[in-house]
Amino acid sequence: MPAGFAATPEPPYYAVIFTSRRTEGDKDYTAIADALFELATNQPGFLGAEHVRGADGFGITIAYFEDEAAIHAWKQNAQHLAAQAKGKADWYSRYQVRVAKVERSYSGPEGR
Amino acid sequence: MPAGFAATPEPPYYAVIFTSRRTEGDKDYTAIADALFELATNQPGFLGAEHVRGADGFGITIAYFEDEAAIHAWKQNAQHLAAQAKGKADWYSRYQVRVAKVERSYSGPEGR
Repeated sequence: MPAGFAATPEPPYYAVIFTSRRTEGDKDYTAIADALFELATNQPGFLGAEHVRGADGFGITIAYFEDEAAIHAWKQNAQHLAAQAKGKADWYSRYQVRVAKVERSYSGPEGR
Repeated sequence: MPAGFAATPEPPYYAVIFTSRRTEGDKDYTAIADALFELATNQPGFLGAEHVRGADGFGITIAYFEDEAAIHAWKQNAQHLAAQAKGKADWYSRYQVRVAKVERSYSGPEGR
């Protein structure tokens, strides 16, 4: 899974915001999530991802894509479909997906 | 600061995605962040927020707003401006702000 900032290009591009609460226990989550991130990295139109999960099990993952076509291609990826099924059955007590178009972006602080 | 999911309405609405890496030490961050969240909650057009920070200091905060006007109003809020200055000077070694329009959203898993 990614650690830290995603190096995204100038907007516009898309963000898929995935907020989730994990169930108890790993249930192969860590290994599969790491493998999926590697797989996503090799998909055309994938721009990067950012991920944090707190000790209470609530987490935010944001995956960035060039366009809607790249989002749809990734959603239909066979290994990703298998992970989505496992997510619904085993990993998450609740999740929310939001698809958003990034319109502007800036970074800081200056001078560091 | 918020714990868990934001109860947002049906899209469209806006998401301000703030990814950051904290410097060492609290430096009044926790108290000011909590106060700011309470303040934001009372601002017209603020829809909610989600926040997670990992043990390594990398965090994601997403604030949801009805429209761009509400984002601009919050950015210019006096107490928020003071916090932004403190963020640049003391709290963050790096941050990235992305403003995105949420176009669609769905939740799961079904039946829980």
